[in-house]
Amino acid sequence: MTLRVLITSGPTREPLDPVRYLTNASSGAMGFALAAEARRRGAKVTVVCGPVSLPAPKGVRVIPVVTALQMHRETLRRSRGADIVIGAAAVSDWRPAGFSSKKLKRSPSSVSLTLVPNPDIIKDAAARRVPGQVFVGFALETHRAAAYARQKLVRKGLDLVVANGPATLASGSIRATLVSRDGLKRLANAPKPRVARAILDEASRLLERRTA
Amino acid sequence: MTLRVLITSGPTREPLDPVRYLTNASSGAMGFALAAEARRRGAKVTVVCGPVSLPAPKGVRVIPVVTALQMHRETLRRSRGADIVIGAAAVSDWRPAGFSSKKLKRSPSSVSLTLVPNPDIIKDAAARRVPGQVFVGFALETHRAAAYARQKLVRKGLDLVVANGPATLASGSIRATLVSRDGLKRLANAPKPRVARAILDEASRLLERRTA
Repeated sequence: MTLRVLITSGPTREPLDPVRYLTNASSGAMGFALAAEARRRGAKVTVVCGPVSLPAPKGVRVIPVVTALQMHRETLRRSRGADIVIGAAAVSDWRPAGFSSKKLKRSPSSVSLTLVPNPDIIKDAAARRVPGQVFVGFALETHRAAAYARQKLVRKGLDLVVANGPATLASGSIRATLVSRDGLKRLANAPKPRVARAILDEASRLLERRTA
Repeated sequence: MTLRVLITSGPTREPLDPVRYLTNASSGAMGFALAAEARRRGAKVTVVCGPVSLPAPKGVRVIPVVTALQMHRETLRRSRGADIVIGAAAVSDWRPAGFSSKKLKRSPSSVSLTLVPNPDIIKDAAARRVPGQVFVGFALETHRAAAYARQKLVRKGLDLVVANGPATLASGSIRATLVSRDGLKRLANAPKPRVARAILDEASRLLERRTA
């Protein structure tokens, strides 16, 4: 049977008004590298993708979204139909509490912006898991990445967490640590396509065990 | 004598922490179209440019910056050496009051973010004008663009303001209105290179009058 892989990729944008938004420098390169590698292995691949300028790999279905709420909806709508779900997107943890449909006018004084938490997409998808599925998350940390990754694995009910640092975001390479219940696997700094292979090897191994 | 043109272009990014920032969807296409056209006319062109993915036109000097404060410094350092200064960048009007060198941790509750006003780059450059210079600003508005553009012209001490709407930001074309002390000139929606020609025609006309 054809392997089905669902991947979130890219940044999200959280608008304050029609012009300004909160975001991050995610290029979507890691998500697309995973998509290309999964496709190469014969999988049916869907990518729920925030705004990126990179072209999508061939043979992959792309669902374009802008905000974390849109990405949450589109991912949860599809997650139960996938064997492997990979949350590679750099989802904004917060969004502005309010949205102004008019562009906010410059003011000579400070302004206070209230940010509310966005839903945790990969956690919510994992909470709705059907037997045999494998969930992979990413942990982008500036400090103690492997330790936080282990916490995320447990708290979010994931099977694998890819820990990495902020240097990854706008880079073609990534220094990643793979964290599963079996332990840690530190990978050398390597191009994203190579790391994508290692992640899919590990996810496939965990999937075989789940479905054995 | 060779015409010297200084252009600001692209968005700015205003970081909260090593990963997240406030920005907008400016592609830098308008600034680069202006730079290419000025170069075509034989000018010596410098572009102070926020983070963009477009390639710069040939023969143009690019000074890369990230934040509004950096753009402010690099622009003011160079503005007195230019005949025409064009503020085409979509500068963030605010920046987070604080910067966390560690990535902020997701929290289950709302967080409050204080934003402080950024300096007004084209206004500050125009305030330091030397005789004979021409200053061109952009006004990106969702409402009453021409009226706000006229206010900006006076308040910022500019010679020309290009009024346009938010649809411009990620688009190859622009529907612009040129506002000077002589009145309004509404341009048809057109590709950015064509509008760049109209803007430089108008700026050159104002420059001739200033230096006459």
